[in-house]
Amino acid sequence: MERPFVFINAAMSADGKISSFHREQVRISGPEDMDRVSLLRAGSDAVMVGVGTVLADDPGLRIKSADHKKMRSDRGQSNQPLRVVVDSRARTPPGSEVLGEGSILAVSEAAPEERLAFLREKCEIVVSGEEKVDLGELLSILKKKGVERLMVEGGATLNWSLIEAGLVDEISVYIGPMIIGGEGAPTLVDGPGFSADYPKLSLISADLLDGGVLLRWRVLR
Amino acid sequence: MERPFVFINAAMSADGKISSFHREQVRISGPEDMDRVSLLRAGSDAVMVGVGTVLADDPGLRIKSADHKKMRSDRGQSNQPLRVVVDSRARTPPGSEVLGEGSILAVSEAAPEERLAFLREKCEIVVSGEEKVDLGELLSILKKKGVERLMVEGGATLNWSLIEAGLVDEISVYIGPMIIGGEGAPTLVDGPGFSADYPKLSLISADLLDGGVLLRWRVLR
Repeated sequence: MERPFVFINAAMSADGKISSFHREQVRISGPEDMDRVSLLRAGSDAVMVGVGTVLADDPGLRIKSADHKKMRSDRGQSNQPLRVVVDSRARTPPGSEVLGEGSILAVSEAAPEERLAFLREKCEIVVSGEEKVDLGELLSILKKKGVERLMVEGGATLNWSLIEAGLVDEISVYIGPMIIGGEGAPTLVDGPGFSADYPKLSLISADLLDGGVLLRWRVLR
Repeated sequence: MERPFVFINAAMSADGKISSFHREQVRISGPEDMDRVSLLRAGSDAVMVGVGTVLADDPGLRIKSADHKKMRSDRGQSNQPLRVVVDSRARTPPGSEVLGEGSILAVSEAAPEERLAFLREKCEIVVSGEEKVDLGELLSILKKKGVERLMVEGGATLNWSLIEAGLVDEISVYIGPMIIGGEGAPTLVDGPGFSADYPKLSLISADLLDGGVLLRWRVLR
């Protein structure tokens, strides 16, 4: 099945955590990195998050920079990339920032209809998979909608599911100058974890940024 | 209290894991990094691990390289740095590789005497703290024994305890080109985790090595 180019973008502490143990958002990166993230969004046809990130952070996932919006309109694109939430059971609150025009809720067949009835007014619903969203099928649907380049903005569980399914091409991770610690704190890639055949990476670049380091990895097949 | 210069050295995957979810040792680094670790040991007066690492990996913690041993004897030092295990309850198996001449078992007053009776033949016992080893006191005792430079080789819980107590000066971490994943996999720093006042770091250097990146951080007070 054809799918878009998929890259994960995230910021983690020097010890691999993307937030604290009680899921509180931690400001890991600085203004330079935030500008870089906005530019990555501007260059993508869609951005994607898991429902855990929506519940924890309620991110808007929109480009704020007028320059970056103009960059898109100069290319004949809409102001904002599509926003996709992977949410097998439709747990996204109808008031979430991510919803609204240009948003897609990717659910499974197990999503309760009474939840979908509310949500259908706020976003497009795409159904795949029985109990859990079939990520391969979802990516193929997005490709048919014209998504060539998909940016994944977390969290730990969605990153795991995509990597485990072999659906990630690149990982960009900013490593910030701080320690978060915690057995229970979310890391860049959670889920059950690999116990053999660990996915191998190839380093594309390592750059100093905001007191930390930005690493770009290619995921090898 | 005076203490040695303390630095943590570790290798983690691109997602911050130091081993897999079932504590299986994963070869994260390559020959260049292993040579670097041996050299760091050679330049240290003592190396330290937590009992969790002893139980999981049974590391010998000795320098194998003849060159590195010679480097030490040329400086009038013993062939090997001291080996210190932090083990509040004396759970280290008496047959562990780490024990033997030049090893210290750091226990608390809660360590059962019947365990210590066995272990006393294999190592020096140093007691501090009531229920848990008092790391500040232990470091001060090591300083009095002539330890000026202490290398901490893991794991996640000892790293946490030392950082939380403000007893770490530097962290060297090699980031290898692989994903391990797993909510339950040990990371560079576990323990309960910080929820505010995250320790800040300052980047000393970032170098490409064995397909990954070696970061050296100074821990700021």
